[in-house]
Amino acid sequence: MKIFLYGIREDEKGYLKEWTDVHPEVDIAYTDQFLTTETAKLAKGYNGVVTLQMLSYSREALQKLHDYGITKISVRNVGLDGFDFQDLRDLGFSLTNVPVYSPNAIAEHTTSLILRLLRRVPEFDKKFNNADYSWFPTIGEEINGKTVGIVGTGHIGSVVARIMQAMGAKVVAYDIKPNPYLENLGIYVDSLDEVLKQADILTLHTPLAKKDVHMIDAAAIAKMKDGVVIINAARGALIDTDALIAGLDSGKVGGAGLDVLESENAVFQKKFNSLDDVKDPQFKALINRDNVIITPHTAFYTTTAVHNMVFDSLTDNLKMLENKAPKYPVDISED
Amino acid sequence: MKIFLYGIREDEKGYLKEWTDVHPEVDIAYTDQFLTTETAKLAKGYNGVVTLQMLSYSREALQKLHDYGITKISVRNVGLDGFDFQDLRDLGFSLTNVPVYSPNAIAEHTTSLILRLLRRVPEFDKKFNNADYSWFPTIGEEINGKTVGIVGTGHIGSVVARIMQAMGAKVVAYDIKPNPYLENLGIYVDSLDEVLKQADILTLHTPLAKKDVHMIDAAAIAKMKDGVVIINAARGALIDTDALIAGLDSGKVGGAGLDVLESENAVFQKKFNSLDDVKDPQFKALINRDNVIITPHTAFYTTTAVHNMVFDSLTDNLKMLENKAPKYPVDISED
Ligand SMILES: NC(=O)c1ccc[n+]([C@@H]2O[C@H](COP(=O)([O-])OP(=O)(O)OC[C@H]3O[C@@H](n4cnc5c(N)ncnc54)[C@H](O)[C@@H]3O)[C@@H](O)[C@H]2O)c1
Ligand SMILES: NC(=O)c1ccc[n+]([C@@H]2O[C@H](COP(=O)([O-])OP(=O)(O)OC[C@H]3O[C@@H](n4cnc5c(N)ncnc54)[C@H](O)[C@@H]3O)[C@@H](O)[C@H]2O)c1
Repeated sequence: MKIFLYGIREDEKGYLKEWTDVHPEVDIAYTDQFLTTETAKLAKGYNGVVTLQMLSYSREALQKLHDYGITKISVRNVGLDGFDFQDLRDLGFSLTNVPVYSPNAIAEHTTSLILRLLRRVPEFDKKFNNADYSWFPTIGEEINGKTVGIVGTGHIGSVVARIMQAMGAKVVAYDIKPNPYLENLGIYVDSLDEVLKQADILTLHTPLAKKDVHMIDAAAIAKMKDGVVIINAARGALIDTDALIAGLDSGKVGGAGLDVLESENAVFQKKFNSLDDVKDPQFKALINRDNVIITPHTAFYTTTAVHNMVFDSLTDNLKMLENKAPKYPVDISED
Repeated sequence: MKIFLYGIREDEKGYLKEWTDVHPEVDIAYTDQFLTTETAKLAKGYNGVVTLQMLSYSREALQKLHDYGITKISVRNVGLDGFDFQDLRDLGFSLTNVPVYSPNAIAEHTTSLILRLLRRVPEFDKKFNNADYSWFPTIGEEINGKTVGIVGTGHIGSVVARIMQAMGAKVVAYDIKPNPYLENLGIYVDSLDEVLKQADILTLHTPLAKKDVHMIDAAAIAKMKDGVVIINAARGALIDTDALIAGLDSGKVGGAGLDVLESENAVFQKKFNSLDDVKDPQFKALINRDNVIITPHTAFYTTTAVHNMVFDSLTDNLKMLENKAPKYPVDISED
């Protein structure tokens, strides 16, 4: 069997080698380029394709793969936004993704964002840059004893709940489909509003359904405690960023830890000459505040997660090629 | 009853007020100055004294308090290094301290140091300062799946153990007096060496007994895994700092998070004009490394901890004045 991989980064190569060491029967080859109408030809002669990209997959590119006899595609991440399922159906493709690669990576990053905000790390960084090594008056807060509100208790939110409880927080959670195991912990309340009302620290861990765009808007922020700390390592558009900025300006919101932003594609994964060259007004309104920490969609970015993205996608691609059931098939029968 | 407090900081004043609100029968007064031969006279007319200072307590100062009829002293922290117990015995003093004010404060700070090192926050900070908002190639590591070695499982180490387990780490711990409750968790190994051998991350939570000075020296570091991350939020002299620096230089030690330093009194709680004015060679050898994070003995510095330091010391001082048993009496019968 021969599998071709697109968009391979330096940090993935070690895991490719590890995988082929345990699958000596499989030939693989790869490129750092994404799958486009131009690069599709690189996969000629291979049986399956593994990809990872934000770019959409053009019908022409898929047509070429189809013409080379390739009908199995595996993506190394969750997101399927780049695909038109109608194209996949028309051309007879089967698709897998990696819906869960490391919930702990995101849960630990969430914990880190909370701790950095509560312990005022940006202010200590400034003091150190000024050769000021005093602690007074930069006093911090503890997670212990605080109420942590969790919206969405799936793979990631449930790990956050466990960590916060171990730290001594009271966890209040809301999920449209409560997790039966977590129900025994007595953490669930009946509405989002109840979480908004009780939380000292609010952290979002839901997908971005259309109805959930701007789940956290000015009205939601108005319901929160004064000084609430808001964490978003889920999807940027869950928060109305302008409303968040207004909340920070007024002091209603005490701090924000943001691994995702509505307009992140204008900024994240880019290198500018200086902050002046960044045009996005929301990013500029957020970046230089002591009580805001932005990370460039790195919550997932650990060696464990990348290992799992490479291993699970390759293994599922091979399963499909061998006509076995993959672990993470994607249902493309409906758009 | 009348109690006089020395060394009161701005951030303690709110808690003084809270305490007197529930003890309207007690008159308190305070100064930001420490207790010295000169300032002892401020306590004249008061029944008890509450202090917090790194400075030693001179026999003359204690003699003056004694002459004013004061024999009850409560310190707001753990440390009793400043007292000569013989002086206290000669002058008939009783003493209390606050041995535990918030183990969670230190345990959460420890967690934060680990996460900041594993997720390479100093490198991301530099990227952000250069308007570089990419994640690649700054890949992180997870606590999940790592072996965390804990030396000392008392008030603080036991909370660290609970948090690390909730994060999915394997905890291996060593304590000269294992905690019976934690024994059920199966975390103990039989020697310090075994912890040194197994730990991906090593964190120290023992007091500084004389025999434990330089517990972590070159020989101990040689027994550790390559790339070990070492955290010290206990006492600086537990680590031979020169050996640690050598370990960082050689790459044997992968990272260090240090809230305490052997020579911290030369640097912490001071403000310099610039780093050039700092003379301490160990601090200078450590401060500008991407894999070292120094915090200026702030692990304890939370509102919860300061609240408890103020409340417990005042309450114990009052108890002694009322001839009741204090919560935290100090045995001064031996040096
Ligand atoms: N920042 C990163 O690097 C990164 C990496 C991976 C995933 N994520 C994001 O994290 C989020 C959670 O991922 P997951 O793997 O835990 O997902 P999941 O599907 O396992 O869990 C999501 C949970 O949210 C619940 N939910 C859905 N809509 C809700 C609503 N309106 N209110 C309350 N609960 C609702 C679901 O019932 C489910 O229990 C997703 O948005 C995902 O895109 C971010
Ligand atoms: N950084 C800060 O702000 C801060 C604040 C408070 C306390 N501390 C320090 O944290 C440390 C732990 O404090 P605690 O309140 O948990 O103390 P504790 O007395 O509750 O626990 C200490 C534990 O260490 C064990 N121990 C003693 N010597 C040992 C050795 N050689 N090897 C293995 N185990 C040993 C004891 O048996 C005990 O279980 C102390 O050094 C204290 O000074 C630091």
